[in-house]
Amino acid sequence: MSAFITEDFLLGNASARRLFDAVRDLPIVDFHSHLDARDIAEDRHWENISQLWLAGDHYKWRAMRWNGVPETFCAGNGDDREKFRRFAATMPRLLRNPLYHWCHLELARYLGVDDLLLGPDTEAEIWERSRAALANGLGARACLRISNVEIVCTTDDPADDLAWHRACAADSSLATRVFPTFRPDRARDFANPPRLAAYLRRLSAASGVTVNCYAALLSALKQRHDFFHAAGCRASDHGIPTVWHAPASELQLERAFQNALSGSLSEGEFAALQTGVLLECARMDFDSGWTRQLHIGPARDTNSRALAALGPDTGFDSIGSADYIAPLARHLDALDSEGRLGRTILYNIHPRDTEALAALAGSFQDALCPGKIQLGAAWWFLDQLDGMRRQLEAVSALGSLPNFVGMLTDSRSFLSFSRHEYFRRLLCGLLGREMEDGLLPGNLPLVAAAARDISYFNPKNFFRFPERGAFFQS
Amino acid sequence: MSAFITEDFLLGNASARRLFDAVRDLPIVDFHSHLDARDIAEDRHWENISQLWLAGDHYKWRAMRWNGVPETFCAGNGDDREKFRRFAATMPRLLRNPLYHWCHLELARYLGVDDLLLGPDTEAEIWERSRAALANGLGARACLRISNVEIVCTTDDPADDLAWHRACAADSSLATRVFPTFRPDRARDFANPPRLAAYLRRLSAASGVTVNCYAALLSALKQRHDFFHAAGCRASDHGIPTVWHAPASELQLERAFQNALSGSLSEGEFAALQTGVLLECARMDFDSGWTRQLHIGPARDTNSRALAALGPDTGFDSIGSADYIAPLARHLDALDSEGRLGRTILYNIHPRDTEALAALAGSFQDALCPGKIQLGAAWWFLDQLDGMRRQLEAVSALGSLPNFVGMLTDSRSFLSFSRHEYFRRLLCGLLGREMEDGLLPGNLPLVAAAARDISYFNPKNFFRFPERGAFFQS
Amino acid sequence: MSAFITEDFLLGNASARRLFDAVRDLPIVDFHSHLDARDIAEDRHWENISQLWLAGDHYKWRAMRWNGVPETFCAGNGDDREKFRRFAATMPRLLRNPLYHWCHLELARYLGVDDLLLGPDTEAEIWERSRAALANGLGARACLRISNVEIVCTTDDPADDLAWHRACAADSSLATRVFPTFRPDRARDFANPPRLAAYLRRLSAASGVTVNCYAALLSALKQRHDFFHAAGCRASDHGIPTVWHAPASELQLERAFQNALSGSLSEGEFAALQTGVLLECARMDFDSGWTRQLHIGPARDTNSRALAALGPDTGFDSIGSADYIAPLARHLDALDSEGRLGRTILYNIHPRDTEALAALAGSFQDALCPGKIQLGAAWWFLDQLDGMRRQLEAVSALGSLPNFVGMLTDSRSFLSFSRHEYFRRLLCGLLGREMEDGLLPGNLPLVAAAARDISYFNPKNFFRFPERGAFFQS
Repeated sequence: MSAFITEDFLLGNASARRLFDAVRDLPIVDFHSHLDARDIAEDRHWENISQLWLAGDHYKWRAMRWNGVPETFCAGNGDDREKFRRFAATMPRLLRNPLYHWCHLELARYLGVDDLLLGPDTEAEIWERSRAALANGLGARACLRISNVEIVCTTDDPADDLAWHRACAADSSLATRVFPTFRPDRARDFANPPRLAAYLRRLSAASGVTVNCYAALLSALKQRHDFFHAAGCRASDHGIPTVWHAPASELQLERAFQNALSGSLSEGEFAALQTGVLLECARMDFDSGWTRQLHIGPARDTNSRALAALGPDTGFDSIGSADYIAPLARHLDALDSEGRLGRTILYNIHPRDTEALAALAGSFQDALCPGKIQLGAAWWFLDQLDGMRRQLEAVSALGSLPNFVGMLTDSRSFLSFSRHEYFRRLLCGLLGREMEDGLLPGNLPLVAAAARDISYFNPKNFFRFPERGAFFQS
Repeated sequence: MSAFITEDFLLGNASARRLFDAVRDLPIVDFHSHLDARDIAEDRHWENISQLWLAGDHYKWRAMRWNGVPETFCAGNGDDREKFRRFAATMPRLLRNPLYHWCHLELARYLGVDDLLLGPDTEAEIWERSRAALANGLGARACLRISNVEIVCTTDDPADDLAWHRACAADSSLATRVFPTFRPDRARDFANPPRLAAYLRRLSAASGVTVNCYAALLSALKQRHDFFHAAGCRASDHGIPTVWHAPASELQLERAFQNALSGSLSEGEFAALQTGVLLECARMDFDSGWTRQLHIGPARDTNSRALAALGPDTGFDSIGSADYIAPLARHLDALDSEGRLGRTILYNIHPRDTEALAALAGSFQDALCPGKIQLGAAWWFLDQLDGMRRQLEAVSALGSLPNFVGMLTDSRSFLSFSRHEYFRRLLCGLLGREMEDGLLPGNLPLVAAAARDISYFNPKNFFRFPERGAFFQS
Repeated sequence: MSAFITEDFLLGNASARRLFDAVRDLPIVDFHSHLDARDIAEDRHWENISQLWLAGDHYKWRAMRWNGVPETFCAGNGDDREKFRRFAATMPRLLRNPLYHWCHLELARYLGVDDLLLGPDTEAEIWERSRAALANGLGARACLRISNVEIVCTTDDPADDLAWHRACAADSSLATRVFPTFRPDRARDFANPPRLAAYLRRLSAASGVTVNCYAALLSALKQRHDFFHAAGCRASDHGIPTVWHAPASELQLERAFQNALSGSLSEGEFAALQTGVLLECARMDFDSGWTRQLHIGPARDTNSRALAALGPDTGFDSIGSADYIAPLARHLDALDSEGRLGRTILYNIHPRDTEALAALAGSFQDALCPGKIQLGAAWWFLDQLDGMRRQLEAVSALGSLPNFVGMLTDSRSFLSFSRHEYFRRLLCGLLGREMEDGLLPGNLPLVAAAARDISYFNPKNFFRFPERGAFFQS
């Protein structure tokens, strides 16, 4: 078996290879992930590749289910060895699926397996070789070092005490800066009174603000926003199935908040509360110079049997089809009219919306910085070769590719940093092909400058993360 | 004029050609067509190529209308010879239209014309040569033999007596197994009381159940479902402009049914009835181990002048834009929650929905079989090179291409079996290109296994059609 | 620096180059632009490249804003020299944006700069060389001559007196025929009573009909329609955010019209009035043998701060997401049912709708002429390489590419005629590639005939513009 992930993977011609030479060694600014800061602080290690790969990866579970693998070996508590066998048997059924590329890239980059295709015939050898790699020190921090990760952002609840982030900051042996991201989704859980009440108790405790009214909710969030800022946080993130824009008076919002607590919320009040919190958080972000991320459109937990059995985030979400273009336009316009529309990254889950978001972004750019409003990297179901190409196409044609803030992992896995290499290869492959086809000038410095900006300098400059020593100072 | 459909048609490199060598001789399982079983039973022959090609083919009529051909020579009763002349004159105006490929492939494979491009300058010769081929024995069964069709499924009304299917099954000289498909669309015609009443009389007669209430409707359908099962039927099909999911009580459904009969149906009742029948038919399918097909989204009969003059299915349908993603998710979830969600194939007519359907399919897979919920082959307006590529892209990126159940003709024509060759060439061309581009491993057995499964073994295993002698036994 | 726009730009192989040889010298029929007839009549000249390029081009303003350029140097009144400097600095950030191609093509074709890439290092030289070109006679008419423009259509308000069109027609030294297009959008401004009233006064004055009721509005429009017809006009154009189809009685329309004037219009009445005027204008178009253009879907003025500061059409529009497929079908059907559905070109701004429009067009073709209902060239945000390819794909797969009425500039700039060259190169590149890939026959005359029709003969035949001397005869 010859190597699959070769030196020239995704690089179709000489120009592409030269471009990749110009970006391959740049550090990584992974500004959106779902890593656990504790794993970094404690330098987590894994016993075997199933623990590393299959525990918690709903992409792989979905793939296995698509191949008819029983749930025990997906999100269930089947035996690790057998789980890997089942996954290996699934791999040949994933030809052309992004997992086929990702897994082999991860095997090559972190586990030293660059000469085998994962399948039933090789899984035993790969199991053993990966055990050896894991035993020989491949842990969370080794992944960060191997991938030259300069900055990584986690995704955190406002009530989090960020103790593990503090531990990371205090550890001078850790080269990577680890920043939290402020994600207040649970503070907007207005349709579920018990969950909301439980969360508000937690938020009250964390903030020292008793959240018994709408104004107190905003105060508590502001307290946590300040706390996160002191921890180096420079970005927020909001996961929303659609965009609401139904502004209401403070009085109406207070009444709606009480109705949310008591379980008597109307649909209009629900939208008003969502609108209010989204706008207010946006203002905090602007005032603090943060970047705001909106992840729009998933249909969560479409399979209620699986939700009951396995809980959320186990691979049963889907692409929602809500049409939010008009309310998103009004939302951005409301902030812009106040002079408080800051750096914003829009992520769509429905491929139908890519161009509309890119066009909308173009209507709210200004002199604050290049590409103030961004169309984010292809997200979730779209985070694969075809989806990434279409996102790059839209950013290019409707906006400014060289000002694109670039790739992120959005991942729970430490091996996913290789996705930055994947993206850089794809980008350089695309640019290189167009150089040789005459669609781009055959001017290497010109094109390489764009590739380097997208790969590293744009995110670095866009977010303005604090330098080491300039956060967690208290 | 050199040949257009060469040996290497759609096969861009050596890997593609090797892959095609591995699939070209596999039999065809055409699990969805609109052929008439009588034509097979009686081995229908045609007088001339207009009878064969232009009678009943609304794709060709639309193409001719797009070229300004008067209706007389499209769906009208113009002279056969002149119709062919008009169609031949239209052909050069169909460059890049799927008909350009399909027609030349059909001329080459069935009519022995592989050296001419159809056009005004060649139509006389092609008319004569095709007459000779038709006179020399090219009939329905010859088409099945030429294309090595192992199984073909027709599309049938529940009230059908399946006499022609029985005749096919009884004819040992017919190598192809011919199965009906249960398509109860007319039993859901609740918005048209006279048509509904007429149909229910027919259904009552066929089933022996007097359909005078909702419960009786379900009983009658169940009787026919059993009857179809005995005839070897293993699949149902439902043509729906959108997906309804508005469950109602039995009492409500009974009342709604009476209102449908009397023409006083409310919109909510209409949705409730559609929901009820769709769910109940799904349960029958699951209980019988059938595969269920949902063809979703056409806007039928958009041109009312043409409808009045020519009737339905004459080429005046279009792509509807109803958003059915959320109700479809709830529909699948309702069945899954009961433990009665069986094999299902989802076909979308709007290209906007391809990825959303693929993602939704992924949320309802389980251990029943690989790819239990499928994104079906590119359908109708999307059944062309670009549409097929996009469907393959979505299945690959969001699901499992090697578990894809593959191609079907969805056709009224016996020459359409060559579309399976077309699909296999496209598939092998795509896979071969990616092998040589390094996007797929250069491992021929691995990739060829996927191509062979998609081309033949997946549909064969997925549907579990009965063997010869194991149906129509009574 | 070697040339970027080479002889083979967009032409990837020998077949593409041969096809382009067959179309490159064909005249241009630019049937939709926003040029000012006065500029042609007076042969406008420009002082410098900023006047020529940056004054009034909202595409370039958006691009500069996306690069963080302050508004002063976009739509503001910054210094011309500095504006050009800012735009030049933006150019490297537009790699893969259509402006990168367009600008360099325009520099090469009109300003003699074919050896430099525009950027901070070359802007001074390009400023000087373009000044020289402008001083040496490059004016509006020179652009028309250089690009061999046989016919150009402007876009005009019904109240316009067309004096500059008359001047053009009377000038025998002008080889290009200049026709107006009837665009009655302001006569449908029913949601803005003061603007409506002001406009109706203007329309009353122009038509000699006092527009104080709905019937009078139609009469006035009919008077102007006739006036435009005498001026050689053969096309109308309608810019609409969605399609309304809510027919109402004359009485209802009269009442709605009065409510529009008094500012008490209901939503239903608004839709009824829009429906009424659109249908009535369509009838006028049919009766006069005109072609009707519908530009559907923009979200206008999404940024209210910018609207207040800079006014409309300054680059703050976006892609709207209204779903108009069903009402558009009913609208076309209503006209078809009356026997008054004439030549129509549908343009969509949302890429989601491309295939649905192509399919719908196919349901209303008839023997009036080939391609009576057209899917228009990729429009606005979609008017770029990827968008143009997708439009060609849809026209090809769902319709008839050789009957496509082809390219237009839709531009305010005299340099935009080079976009026809761009389109022809793209088209020939696409067709040539498919010839050599075996997807199209390797029959040059056959394919070249299609390319020539699309490039020139189709629009010429489709619109049936009057010959010189056959208009403005009074």
